[in-house]
Amino acid sequence: MSGTQRCPREDRLATEEPLEIRLSWPGAPPQRLAVTMRTPGQDFELGAGFVLGEGLADIDAVRGVSYCTDRALRPDQTYNVVTVALDRPPLRGLPRRQGAVSSACGVCGKDSLDSVTEFGGMPVPEGPELPVETLRALPDLLRAHQQLFERTGGLHAAGLFTVAAEPLLVREDVGRHNAVDKLVGACALQRVDARGGLLCTSGRAGFEIVQKAVLAGIPVVVAVGAPSSLAVACAQRFGVTLAGFTRADRCVIYAGEARVGV
Amino acid sequence: MSGTQRCPREDRLATEEPLEIRLSWPGAPPQRLAVTMRTPGQDFELGAGFVLGEGLADIDAVRGVSYCTDRALRPDQTYNVVTVALDRPPLRGLPRRQGAVSSACGVCGKDSLDSVTEFGGMPVPEGPELPVETLRALPDLLRAHQQLFERTGGLHAAGLFTVAAEPLLVREDVGRHNAVDKLVGACALQRVDARGGLLCTSGRAGFEIVQKAVLAGIPVVVAVGAPSSLAVACAQRFGVTLAGFTRADRCVIYAGEARVGV
Repeated sequence: MSGTQRCPREDRLATEEPLEIRLSWPGAPPQRLAVTMRTPGQDFELGAGFVLGEGLADIDAVRGVSYCTDRALRPDQTYNVVTVALDRPPLRGLPRRQGAVSSACGVCGKDSLDSVTEFGGMPVPEGPELPVETLRALPDLLRAHQQLFERTGGLHAAGLFTVAAEPLLVREDVGRHNAVDKLVGACALQRVDARGGLLCTSGRAGFEIVQKAVLAGIPVVVAVGAPSSLAVACAQRFGVTLAGFTRADRCVIYAGEARVGV
Repeated sequence: MSGTQRCPREDRLATEEPLEIRLSWPGAPPQRLAVTMRTPGQDFELGAGFVLGEGLADIDAVRGVSYCTDRALRPDQTYNVVTVALDRPPLRGLPRRQGAVSSACGVCGKDSLDSVTEFGGMPVPEGPELPVETLRALPDLLRAHQQLFERTGGLHAAGLFTVAAEPLLVREDVGRHNAVDKLVGACALQRVDARGGLLCTSGRAGFEIVQKAVLAGIPVVVAVGAPSSLAVACAQRFGVTLAGFTRADRCVIYAGEARVGV
């Protein structure tokens, strides 16, 4: 409704469906890792990116990703369950976010930062050096490459760019975290090296976005929205350049400013 | 950095810290329900709202909410663990989103809608009838009542309003879902009746936002951002009025339009 006019019309909506991500490896039954609400599409990339982002495997351990063929699934569920198959056991125990209270690990900011190291996160390499104009250009470039945004208005995007602001890959999802997982998974499955690239996210930069960048070895994170305190602490600890509130005429650098020239 | 000027300055950041939510009831050891990244503050409301939003208890079963006094916790973790104490066992088994694969339940949109009923969600009452101007006014009112937004730019907000667009409660968080959980928990703990009210959220309206509204009996959800397909389906099934892309001069009604007059 606009003004005082009521005008019924068709509208495209961003599709949201649950995806169950399972992990399997030789000699063990498949384990359910997570259920996430996502936009269908690029589900294999999302599954692979999720597993990498949790530090459960390196990409060369991923034998394949497939939709589940469990006979217990109804037809309308078939494309909502993916299994990431490893050729060896996972690098660490599966995350347990629920159940009996066994330890108090992971419940303060310092624990969260330590867990990035436990997941296999390491300080990102020094460089590249960038003019600030490159960072400021990314949100508009990201928007230009979003295929669905203009139609639904409901999708977050994550894009990987070269230091010359050329887009390598762009992925979308109703969820900010899922968009980054799809992007990281796409890099892994397509053997695109993310380690010299720039990640641009259409939303806020919370801790988990920066954590995913660290685990993928991405040295620069540019957010359209605000960063959180823990995101800045994570970027500082792992040498990531973090920019927030970025648009064509503005950009605030919260960490790793040595990479950025005026 | 603005223009070609580099200007270092102090900046306030939205604080993000993990919160572990535990549930206890007579005769059972405390169970870990979830760990969520949140903005500290109103943690008891967040804990209570989360438990209500998962359909685990009615508010009259909540005996209290407290910070955990577990001796295994270090001092910096103390205020990051809350226990919601019930005076009786939970209404249903604790959610299991991880672990061994036992059933394929919950992995399509229809399952998700059915789970709202399983959580105790019922169609919201008919009424109230509202002029569309009331809905359009809510985002600006929400912003005016956000205490932190102007300073950090990084917080989502959820507000409960009367049918006359008077704010009853406003809560903020780095996470959209947490802001709604804090709001619902605050209503429960302060005995504010949400069932005739209007929920305004600063972000998108995904499925889980509408699910939380249904479980709290809130008949109208107004979002600044876009709704998802499953959010619209959920609103339609449970009789919720759902408005998206709402601002002072615009509002798109996706479900429950019978409540809204021109």
